Amino acid sequence: MSSDRLIYLPLGGAGEIGMNCYVYGYGPKDAERLIVVDLGVTFPNMDTTPGVDLIMADVSWLEARKDRIEAVFITHAHEDHVGAVGHLYERLGAPLIYARAFTANIARRKLDEYAIEAEAVKTASPWPETVQAGPFTVGFLPISHSVPESSALVIDTPAGRVVHTGDFKLDETPVVGEPFDRALWESVAKPGVRALVCDSTNVFSGHAGRSESTVGPEIKKLVAGQKGMVIATTFASNIARVKTLAEAGRATGRSICLLGRAMRRMIEAAVETGILTDFPTVVSPEDAREIPRDNLMLLVTGSQGERRAATAQLANGKYMGLSLSEGDLFLFSSKTIPGNERDVIRIINQLSEQGVDVVDDSSGLYHVSGHANRPDLEQMHQLVNPQIVVPMHGEHRHLREHVKLGQTNGFQGIVAVNGMMIDLSGNAPSVAEYIESGRTYLDGAVQIGAFDGIVRDRIRMALNGHVIVTVIVDEDGEPLGEPWCELRGLAETGTSNAPLVEVLEHDLGQFLMRASDKTLMDDDALEDELKKLTRQVTQTEIGKKVEVTCVISRLS
Amino acid sequence: MSSDRLIYLPLGGAGEIGMNCYVYGYGPKDAERLIVVDLGVTFPNMDTTPGVDLIMADVSWLEARKDRIEAVFITHAHEDHVGAVGHLYERLGAPLIYARAFTANIARRKLDEYAIEAEAVKTASPWPETVQAGPFTVGFLPISHSVPESSALVIDTPAGRVVHTGDFKLDETPVVGEPFDRALWESVAKPGVRALVCDSTNVFSGHAGRSESTVGPEIKKLVAGQKGMVIATTFASNIARVKTLAEAGRATGRSICLLGRAMRRMIEAAVETGILTDFPTVVSPEDAREIPRDNLMLLVTGSQGERRAATAQLANGKYMGLSLSEGDLFLFSSKTIPGNERDVIRIINQLSEQGVDVVDDSSGLYHVSGHANRPDLEQMHQLVNPQIVVPMHGEHRHLREHVKLGQTNGFQGIVAVNGMMIDLSGNAPSVAEYIESGRTYLDGAVQIGAFDGIVRDRIRMALNGHVIVTVIVDEDGEPLGEPWCELRGLAETGTSNAPLVEVLEHDLGQFLMRASDKTLMDDDALEDELKKLTRQVTQTEIGKKVEVTCVISRLS
Repeated sequence: MSSDRLIYLPLGGAGEIGMNCYVYGYGPKDAERLIVVDLGVTFPNMDTTPGVDLIMADVSWLEARKDRIEAVFITHAHEDHVGAVGHLYERLGAPLIYARAFTANIARRKLDEYAIEAEAVKTASPWPETVQAGPFTVGFLPISHSVPESSALVIDTPAGRVVHTGDFKLDETPVVGEPFDRALWESVAKPGVRALVCDSTNVFSGHAGRSESTVGPEIKKLVAGQKGMVIATTFASNIARVKTLAEAGRATGRSICLLGRAMRRMIEAAVETGILTDFPTVVSPEDAREIPRDNLMLLVTGSQGERRAATAQLANGKYMGLSLSEGDLFLFSSKTIPGNERDVIRIINQLSEQGVDVVDDSSGLYHVSGHANRPDLEQMHQLVNPQIVVPMHGEHRHLREHVKLGQTNGFQGIVAVNGMMIDLSGNAPSVAEYIESGRTYLDGAVQIGAFDGIVRDRIRMALNGHVIVTVIVDEDGEPLGEPWCELRGLAETGTSNAPLVEVLEHDLGQFLMRASDKTLMDDDALEDELKKLTRQVTQTEIGKKVEVTCVISRLS
Repeated sequence: MSSDRLIYLPLGGAGEIGMNCYVYGYGPKDAERLIVVDLGVTFPNMDTTPGVDLIMADVSWLEARKDRIEAVFITHAHEDHVGAVGHLYERLGAPLIYARAFTANIARRKLDEYAIEAEAVKTASPWPETVQAGPFTVGFLPISHSVPESSALVIDTPAGRVVHTGDFKLDETPVVGEPFDRALWESVAKPGVRALVCDSTNVFSGHAGRSESTVGPEIKKLVAGQKGMVIATTFASNIARVKTLAEAGRATGRSICLLGRAMRRMIEAAVETGILTDFPTVVSPEDAREIPRDNLMLLVTGSQGERRAATAQLANGKYMGLSLSEGDLFLFSSKTIPGNERDVIRIINQLSEQGVDVVDDSSGLYHVSGHANRPDLEQMHQLVNPQIVVPMHGEHRHLREHVKLGQTNGFQGIVAVNGMMIDLSGNAPSVAEYIESGRTYLDGAVQIGAFDGIVRDRIRMALNGHVIVTVIVDEDGEPLGEPWCELRGLAETGTSNAPLVEVLEHDLGQFLMRASDKTLMDDDALEDELKKLTRQVTQTEIGKKVEVTCVISRLS
């Protein structure tokens, strides 16, 4: 039917790095059948999301159309691609979920937290096998990345083929998992590709990416020279790196001990799914305590400075009975994600205080990125040779640069950010519609909207402190006794050198004595006046306009 | 007298980068006469210091000994060296302050905010002139850095000469101000130096530092090729860089417009003190609006992403009637200080959304550091040839690495962090005492201690939200009506799908009905029980243990 269209709608991950969630649709306008690619999370910070546990895409648009969802496809097992699958499963109408074995293993662990059965996730075989999902035929095309069994998706539709890369690099020697298979990719490209929806993370890195296999020899050299204990951290999901680190330990006569829940869980998943078959034997933390330090290597979680992870706890003193000492080596086989610098640096200084030598990725020897660099992106464009390049998985600056890069080589592109529905049916991509997109916060056990004002109130209390004013009004509408003030997060004494709470109670008491009956009878008016006066007093006394909560109790 | 000793006591800046405050003392133990070097600030962040305006060293130790303070010496005009001079002046007993002309100009502006007279700051001439301060003879020895008239201090005492480098680099072509004068430094070193107290900032940078003069030609080339408006940001106090940028604009036929208070104030101070004599003519923002974009260059504040600075406001839309548009170039002629990445990246993405091309320091062409790199530090050690190297101006990892570096070349050293009083009298440095050191927060108009619990309470409200529980108890000790709850920063509805406030008020009401007279009569016991129950309910309903404030009003 000529009225059918093929749409692409990012709800998360386009205009940011994290929280990936992409929608494809095919069919008549506003009645397209839909598939969802990835359901990821991103992580909160004190600046913008204090107290929040996790952040995910606002899927209200999908929720309202859940009867049109054919399936969800997860490209790989990173949190920013699979982390929200449990939290959003019910809201999306309990859809079919497809993933390859390792990713499915991780996804099932997420669903299990919501007591959702393992069968909710179907294990998919790699390309050339495919899954039928309404008008879509979807295949998992292996591609190298920093987690096992990462896959691009080959999405065939009546309007043509879309290749959704997922996160990727071009690595022909990835240590663990499938090497990048150029011939396979060429065969996928051959029939013609309408759109390449492509990872943009490293578009600003000018040199060609390096293979995972290059770090092993360097790490071995580094570890070989060490006298004390060696501790190394990396993302637990980077099974290849964990293996490389463990092998460097084994090669130098060290027992390997895994610390941190994620580290144990990921290795477990890799063994369960047959990806890891020859991992060195590991010792328990209890046994590790008995092993001489120069025969021991710890592989630990927390490369991003996460406060409760093993790295932070070791830096702080002790973890599982193990502690660091002068002359130990701590290797960050990882890159600090922008925004995490302060946490990582704090830990490095704590390690320094213990006399531990720290080696990070600044030499370029002990870590390689899991994403395609600029020249690799150009290779990918040329290999797939699509009609349209649609950059994803990047902040605005990455997407814009990626479009420019494609254009340099003759590929048309479009900067599509979250909420921009793109019509891929025509010869050129066009914006079909703007969808209200946003973020949903997991806050304790509940989901709240980013614009609900809840987190805004927390930030205000943190910036301004909080004064609680309690007033009791009697049956006749007269204030009963003095107003009562409580301070939270505020200096006790201001510029007049009297206790702030006394100055407040005095001035508010004076106000109440003079207040008109009309004000006293009207809760809203009384509250407004009390708040205004409280702010005036704190501004004068301590130079801050505080948050105020008024509790007016009327006896009746 | 043999019992006299020479002590060094960092109160800020050793174990961190920022908030510099160093004390030297000479005389009998516990009766030493004191001088203070630098009174700087550091900046707050949401993670650890929400709502705080500025952070400075806790000078309680000095305050208790203010009668022993001979003078304060300010090495240069950066905020982390001079920023606290106004806030701490009275607490230190209104000491004499010495600085060179440009630094003195800035210091007087700080004191003026407290209505302290300009004469409080004495303008010092450079070495070989000196200032007598009790047993100390102090000279300002010119050294290059990223602000005019930076000086090392030559501190002569009966126990020998100390050279306190301040912040420095070895730059023989610094564009503005005095070139590094090796011969002059050699003459200072010649009589023998007991201790070199030395900047450690760039100890991890392995290549030799580059001169300020290398960036000019590159910036000119960059600006020359531009069609649209050019906007550049750097630290306003980097007068040499501001001049270089302005000259690149002038050379390409652009009018220069300065935006941001600090930018105008710094240029003003540099002109007032005769440091800048040939700065290109500037136009006002009003006039700038009338100038064609390709003939205009804006020099703006906010290179670190500060929210209220000109860069952030331009990225957000408009500033002083000027706005950006597609094809403009925005140059960050600056390095992002660790911890500021998130703010800077947000701005770069906003610029990208406006179609503005951003160039930063990643190419290494458009910015050079103001601090000595590792090979330059080695040069400095060898040039001064001290008995002892005492690293300062660094986090623990920098200080430790700097000591190691000195040891490699045969210099003994000591890692001295804030609060460690070092005796420099003997042949080897030794720890004389540990002083309680810490941080003081400027919070609105008042100073509060870092451990007062005030900021901790703010962080808790931000992480956990805040519930206010109000209970009225009548004359007979019986609860009057229902308890009343107010929520701030919390989800309205929990897992039971009833409004959280109703669940709370119901459960607290039930508790009050059943509470014993003993509990009801005892404010503390009643409050404890109400808080405990409130936390239990919120944990069940929304999965959060909230902050609780109880207001118990007793009618009498």
